[in-house]
Amino acid sequence: MNRVGIIGYGITPFTKKDHSTESALLESTRRLFVENPEIMPKEIDAVLVSTNSNTKYLSPILSEMTGVSPKISHTVESLCSSGTNTIVSAYSYIASGLADLVLVAGADRYDSPGQVLEWDNSRGQYKHPVFWASIFSKAYKRRFSVSNEQLAIVPVKNHKQAKDNPNALSEKICTVEDVINSKKITKDLRLLECSRPCTGSASIVLGSEDMVKRLAHSPVWITGIGQKTTSAGFTKNIPSNFMESTKIAGRMSLEMSNKHAKNIDVAEIHDAFSVCEPMALEALGFSADGKGMHTIQELHETDNFKINPRGGLIGAGHPLGATGIAQTIEVTQQLQSNAGNRQVDDPKVGLVHNMSAAATSSTVLVLET
Amino acid sequence: MNRVGIIGYGITPFTKKDHSTESALLESTRRLFVENPEIMPKEIDAVLVSTNSNTKYLSPILSEMTGVSPKISHTVESLCSSGTNTIVSAYSYIASGLADLVLVAGADRYDSPGQVLEWDNSRGQYKHPVFWASIFSKAYKRRFSVSNEQLAIVPVKNHKQAKDNPNALSEKICTVEDVINSKKITKDLRLLECSRPCTGSASIVLGSEDMVKRLAHSPVWITGIGQKTTSAGFTKNIPSNFMESTKIAGRMSLEMSNKHAKNIDVAEIHDAFSVCEPMALEALGFSADGKGMHTIQELHETDNFKINPRGGLIGAGHPLGATGIAQTIEVTQQLQSNAGNRQVDDPKVGLVHNMSAAATSSTVLVLET
Repeated sequence: MNRVGIIGYGITPFTKKDHSTESALLESTRRLFVENPEIMPKEIDAVLVSTNSNTKYLSPILSEMTGVSPKISHTVESLCSSGTNTIVSAYSYIASGLADLVLVAGADRYDSPGQVLEWDNSRGQYKHPVFWASIFSKAYKRRFSVSNEQLAIVPVKNHKQAKDNPNALSEKICTVEDVINSKKITKDLRLLECSRPCTGSASIVLGSEDMVKRLAHSPVWITGIGQKTTSAGFTKNIPSNFMESTKIAGRMSLEMSNKHAKNIDVAEIHDAFSVCEPMALEALGFSADGKGMHTIQELHETDNFKINPRGGLIGAGHPLGATGIAQTIEVTQQLQSNAGNRQVDDPKVGLVHNMSAAATSSTVLVLET
Repeated sequence: MNRVGIIGYGITPFTKKDHSTESALLESTRRLFVENPEIMPKEIDAVLVSTNSNTKYLSPILSEMTGVSPKISHTVESLCSSGTNTIVSAYSYIASGLADLVLVAGADRYDSPGQVLEWDNSRGQYKHPVFWASIFSKAYKRRFSVSNEQLAIVPVKNHKQAKDNPNALSEKICTVEDVINSKKITKDLRLLECSRPCTGSASIVLGSEDMVKRLAHSPVWITGIGQKTTSAGFTKNIPSNFMESTKIAGRMSLEMSNKHAKNIDVAEIHDAFSVCEPMALEALGFSADGKGMHTIQELHETDNFKINPRGGLIGAGHPLGATGIAQTIEVTQQLQSNAGNRQVDDPKVGLVHNMSAAATSSTVLVLET
């Protein structure tokens, strides 16, 4: 199998602004081409758009706007993990030899239709993700005797880290008290524990080994891929095994890259809600069961940005189709020692964890210099 | 690169019925599993859904309904050629080694949102495909001195061939006079010259060489793939080069399979409107420029089903996300000598031509036994 690496990227600020999905896609792609003049639009073989937007034919639209005339062009959708699904699809086109250079562009608006789980009629009126997050939160707190105050460390840490991310939606740090006293969304969920929908876009160019060697200043390789879909409805995973898909995808990606969780120097974790971060750390093998908050508290107290250096979804904002790509860009920047004030100390191996709909599906990537 | 072949398929009737996209997807997939009991849902590595529906997360939904727990799951959209785009994506997962067995399931409803070209504001009110089809028709007739009566042979032939397709939307044959006297949609387009939106679904399972050898009764291999996107707006291709993307994709797929147009024994051609069939035959090298209708007339007069044996889009109906998959199933059945009354005489090499939005993008596949 051909090696696949990351050559360049472009990202927009994540905001509450009313840009169209098309404009957002164009803006991150424009930045990518401006910042990577060695990537020639004419050389791009495939343009894959990651989005939950209802607009059709976005890949040819973006291609025409940016002067790309690709062989392969289509949209990929898988809710909140559309971004990494699209990156893995790009990987497969390159590894199979059907393409050498692939542009992956993701975007969504603050009012993206991917935010409501419309299909699951069994949920009745409880179609919004806050409801599964509440059940996860309640079950996790009860099972491991974790308090609201302890869980509140996740948003405190991630808003703090987002301060050093110039593209983050978050504009201020917060305290445990701020989290506890923020608007009560449900009995087990406060407003500041939720990632917020926003408008934003992130683009990345992947290439074959030859392309990476020719075009990349500081190559980063995708060495591990794990994906798993356990179901479409989350009730299957409650209460014994919250993040089974993450567990399986994590194991698969670490095996493929011949790494262990202890080898990971920096990671982007899908903290759609505060409880997701400790759960995912446990599912991925970073922490023992029930000990995720210990890990997070220690990192927070020592100002170690290892987990979610850009502020995670809670700090950076969550424009669905862009999120997995933005996570991958962050880990790439970290591995390139190009992450400014957020830089983790000399990382060699990074991990991206992206998931959808109460972890009914997950993608995990391992990246290496 | 690993070889990739077709193991099994399932298809629903194409109708005007009011089934949901989910129900249609489930029905073609259910038929696939019933008709191919050797394909075990548990062994499927990826479920890729092809659709223009606005419903999200359809792949995990279909997976849960059919007892599949895949690694990879997402939706692919590229308007009318979503189906073959999804097949090529499945091919790349298998050829790259990320998957061994992939289910591709396509469906759309008669009222699919992919039928209106909403994005192109430059079209003003003329957003429906009938407008580009009218311009194509007018320009083609003028350039090659083709009459309305000559073009009408396309729907006459394709409705005739659809009579032998039990899943076709078309229920009756028609004459040249019927076509000419059918409702005038625009100055250059009659109702019977248009493919009709409908509700339908088609599913196919692709596999690696090992899987094909283990599971397929009558293996058919994908030996050629060509894809090209020239733009998102069709005006670029008028009037000198109607189907540039088809020309490029066709050449690419024939080169990859080391074949020439004269080697193709049976072909599915994207006849969204009557004029598309002669145009595509010329772009693909089956006919000299301006001679597409000669080829079609000769085939019609000799009852040779070589082009669009299932009746094409005009005869079979056009449920957008299912069309490219249904075309691929038809060519597979032909190569397996399993096409009933539509069977072409002992074909060895087949071709699928699927395109979107005035041939601004095209996919061409070559299939062989």
